[in-house]
Amino acid sequence: MTTPPNAPEPDAGLEPDRRAPWRERLHEVIFEADTPLGRLFDVSLLVLIVFSVLLVSLETVHADGTPTGPTLGAKYPELFLGLEWGLTAVFTLEYVLRLLALKRPRGYAFSFFGFVDLAAILPTYLALFGVGSESLLVIRGLRLMRVFRVLKLAKYVSEARELRRSIADNAAKLTVFLSFILITVSILGAVMYLVEGGDPESGFTSIPMSMYWAVVTMTTVGYGDVAPTSALGRGIAAMIMILGYALIIVPTGILSAELASRRVRPVSTKACKNCSAEGHEVGAEFCRRCGEAL
Amino acid sequence: MTTPPNAPEPDAGLEPDRRAPWRERLHEVIFEADTPLGRLFDVSLLVLIVFSVLLVSLETVHADGTPTGPTLGAKYPELFLGLEWGLTAVFTLEYVLRLLALKRPRGYAFSFFGFVDLAAILPTYLALFGVGSESLLVIRGLRLMRVFRVLKLAKYVSEARELRRSIADNAAKLTVFLSFILITVSILGAVMYLVEGGDPESGFTSIPMSMYWAVVTMTTVGYGDVAPTSALGRGIAAMIMILGYALIIVPTGILSAELASRRVRPVSTKACKNCSAEGHEVGAEFCRRCGEAL
Amino acid sequence: MTTPPNAPEPDAGLEPDRRAPWRERLHEVIFEADTPLGRLFDVSLLVLIVFSVLLVSLETVHADGTPTGPTLGAKYPELFLGLEWGLTAVFTLEYVLRLLALKRPRGYAFSFFGFVDLAAILPTYLALFGVGSESLLVIRGLRLMRVFRVLKLAKYVSEARELRRSIADNAAKLTVFLSFILITVSILGAVMYLVEGGDPESGFTSIPMSMYWAVVTMTTVGYGDVAPTSALGRGIAAMIMILGYALIIVPTGILSAELASRRVRPVSTKACKNCSAEGHEVGAEFCRRCGEAL
Amino acid sequence: MTTPPNAPEPDAGLEPDRRAPWRERLHEVIFEADTPLGRLFDVSLLVLIVFSVLLVSLETVHADGTPTGPTLGAKYPELFLGLEWGLTAVFTLEYVLRLLALKRPRGYAFSFFGFVDLAAILPTYLALFGVGSESLLVIRGLRLMRVFRVLKLAKYVSEARELRRSIADNAAKLTVFLSFILITVSILGAVMYLVEGGDPESGFTSIPMSMYWAVVTMTTVGYGDVAPTSALGRGIAAMIMILGYALIIVPTGILSAELASRRVRPVSTKACKNCSAEGHEVGAEFCRRCGEAL
Repeated sequence: MTTPPNAPEPDAGLEPDRRAPWRERLHEVIFEADTPLGRLFDVSLLVLIVFSVLLVSLETVHADGTPTGPTLGAKYPELFLGLEWGLTAVFTLEYVLRLLALKRPRGYAFSFFGFVDLAAILPTYLALFGVGSESLLVIRGLRLMRVFRVLKLAKYVSEARELRRSIADNAAKLTVFLSFILITVSILGAVMYLVEGGDPESGFTSIPMSMYWAVVTMTTVGYGDVAPTSALGRGIAAMIMILGYALIIVPTGILSAELASRRVRPVSTKACKNCSAEGHEVGAEFCRRCGEAL
Repeated sequence: MTTPPNAPEPDAGLEPDRRAPWRERLHEVIFEADTPLGRLFDVSLLVLIVFSVLLVSLETVHADGTPTGPTLGAKYPELFLGLEWGLTAVFTLEYVLRLLALKRPRGYAFSFFGFVDLAAILPTYLALFGVGSESLLVIRGLRLMRVFRVLKLAKYVSEARELRRSIADNAAKLTVFLSFILITVSILGAVMYLVEGGDPESGFTSIPMSMYWAVVTMTTVGYGDVAPTSALGRGIAAMIMILGYALIIVPTGILSAELASRRVRPVSTKACKNCSAEGHEVGAEFCRRCGEAL
Repeated sequence: MTTPPNAPEPDAGLEPDRRAPWRERLHEVIFEADTPLGRLFDVSLLVLIVFSVLLVSLETVHADGTPTGPTLGAKYPELFLGLEWGLTAVFTLEYVLRLLALKRPRGYAFSFFGFVDLAAILPTYLALFGVGSESLLVIRGLRLMRVFRVLKLAKYVSEARELRRSIADNAAKLTVFLSFILITVSILGAVMYLVEGGDPESGFTSIPMSMYWAVVTMTTVGYGDVAPTSALGRGIAAMIMILGYALIIVPTGILSAELASRRVRPVSTKACKNCSAEGHEVGAEFCRRCGEAL
Repeated sequence: MTTPPNAPEPDAGLEPDRRAPWRERLHEVIFEADTPLGRLFDVSLLVLIVFSVLLVSLETVHADGTPTGPTLGAKYPELFLGLEWGLTAVFTLEYVLRLLALKRPRGYAFSFFGFVDLAAILPTYLALFGVGSESLLVIRGLRLMRVFRVLKLAKYVSEARELRRSIADNAAKLTVFLSFILITVSILGAVMYLVEGGDPESGFTSIPMSMYWAVVTMTTVGYGDVAPTSALGRGIAAMIMILGYALIIVPTGILSAELASRRVRPVSTKACKNCSAEGHEVGAEFCRRCGEAL
């Protein structure tokens, strides 16, 4: 109450918006999703990201359908390498533009998306120096999370925030739940190894293997690559399924029902021009992280 | 309040019901389910549809139980062809009668059931001109949705409407949920391909294959045709099962709990004589789509 | 209110309790679970039923653990036949005593448990006349439902009643739900047969087989005996899993949440001396089926 | 209200705290988790327990990755035996210190954790006398439950207590639920044995085997080691999946929703100096089991 109505003004006065108009405009295009150009930029970027993920996926597909034949990447190396470098060039340009568009680029560079955007272009450059960096391509997948920006109507953002906050609020329940599962899995793994360990065909070849079986069974995935073969083992497994079912489903149900009884506060879609922070409340006029006027 | 009691009259006056009495009667038989004849028509039609679906299914069954032997369709071609043409003739007659019974048949012809009814008879005719059209037989299955008309007590229709409206209202939640699953599946697919890709026996032969595994595992289906074989792969898979379980079950639970807290408004079973629109509110006296008196 | 306090008296007067004291006592022992003797009778009977179920199960077990060796029943025919006849004699005696203990035995003879009790002893007698009646032994399993009598504290009975009434009240929802699943299964079966039918290794050898696969997949059981092998088939299967999951889980969740919001009325454990009807409300003084004083 | 403020004093006077200061201090370190030293002790102990579980697990892993090769335990017997004896020595010391730190050690010795702590060190000693006691190593897994002490903020403890109390309160529902599942499994097992028993390839070799299949299917685990092969068997299995699904999921959902509507009373983390009882209410000043001042 009695919040000083001019509190943020001195801050705005200390650091006035001296950015060139083109940077102002660049920020609008890159970081906003409400204006036509901003929306066009976001959708184009998302299409490119989806395309880059598809490209990496297709590169690993075997051309003739057999698991031992050459992959598409080995068959058409120039095509895939060319597209790879083209995408890397576009993503590099986008990263530089993002840094230019912000008044304090470090806020973005050290944020989650800043790291992901950088990590998504580095592997291709590292390959120039002979560093085997195929594994880092996984990070491209993380860039897909930009889809939430493109879908960025206020309600979508609030849905995601709601889920995140709910999980944070229930951290205690989740910790007890996970500890309980890990202990149960350890004990069941040891028991089933003692019962089934003698039969190499059953797949219970070691205690870690039995623990893997316990997880596969209690989550009801049930591959069948490890399955009990003795009468005693099958009896214990059946008991684990019926009781273990309750162990996993009941706490999950409790958590779900609790999360369902929550309400959402609407969240604005504006991004801060200074540090690119998002998720401000509707009606907020200043960035909650750096005080910049929105 | 104060709805003009004679508002629809001019409309009724502009387009009086000049249909012949037999068309009036035809409409009652074909489009209503409350009168004895209407109910008889609906049940007979449903029996024919179920029979046609069973026929197409039986045609593909192997006569001797082995997957390489001749199918029943290849063994008794005349029988199946004869029944097929008989059913097509009946369904064609029904389609023509439906068009005749309505004042404005285009309303029905361009509705969902209009397209399905037409698509269910076209394939057999196209086969006359040598067009391989077996694939269109799938559409016969859609005709089974007429079962809801036969069960057409007000409460059944309202149940279906309730589910549909609930899903529409939660479109935002569902979009976030599906995007989240697709992103998770992409990332997990790439990770597991890097870990397990070296072993052709494990089945992780490409990234799309790994993504397929991720879906099979996270939905707890767990065929076992693709399963990790290395210790690291099994460890990651176990983590995915426990955590990924929460990723799918918890949002589903939230959605369910939310949908459960809804109420249903009763819906009438009357169909419009003009455009065949259904789902009017109980007590409604005019079609909400074309203004025709019910 | 103002219920005539002597209303049931004429009824009691018309048909006074002329049963011999031993029949009165027999009824108490056989049909009540609150007195020490009644409880002893129920527990002994349940032990015998469990034993008879175990006996039939053990008879089919292969003595040497291999699926082709002789079963225990074939190895020790005298032992199993002897025990079988012993149990049948006891169950026959029990059935006759039940008929004797009641004033109107037809109420029991034509009830669900009356049929089950008779069906459980008939097969052994039919075998005397050369009728192969092994299959009727399944009915012995139904007798296990007497366990609810032994656990017959008021709350247990009310739990079971609550579940039953909940399911009855939601019959409309369940019908829509089941119809929807059957239609979806039919359409998916046809689609997957067209996509995967060409490959005999995948297991989609006919449309009924594909429908079986659709059920196994949508319920997340996932045996893996039928699984897609083509890229297109795997893509469709993945979509079915994610969307079909919602088709089954969400309605189930709605139903569960609705059932959970119910309350139970306490139910008495008294059984009517006349017609053996159970489940009277606590405090009820006359049988709701035949008017007999409790 | 009006609780006599000096009620517990006579008790404290009858048995004054005559323990040596070092025992007072020992109790604080071993049994409390709020002081720095107590927390250090608990974390160190937990690390040792996790290490001992990992050790037993690793001992069974096959060195060369094949299920027939020698295990790590057979390859490095001195290493594993040495670590085993070292851990046993530490755990023995801990057990003795626990007994010393309490005024009435019998309260601890006959508690759940007392038995587990003793059982975790006995097997190694028994091996000295030639008793094959590997199987008792399973009990080490139970010691992992000490993790809840290390996480021992009030809320974690209350979460666990809440779950336990909820399950106790719903014992009636759970009993009906489990009985129902066991009966269903028995009947389904007998039915499927009659239908599929003729085909040794399907895996339905005996009724117990069919019951195992019924559990694997109804819990949606679905290994696929036992699966129907006849058309009739597949039809019945599909029905069991759809209906049996409801049999398991719906009661689980009801239970979950009920458990979700509960509240937690906060619980203190103090342990009694006399009998080591835990879980006292916040603000309690005397042990609810032995009356000792906290």
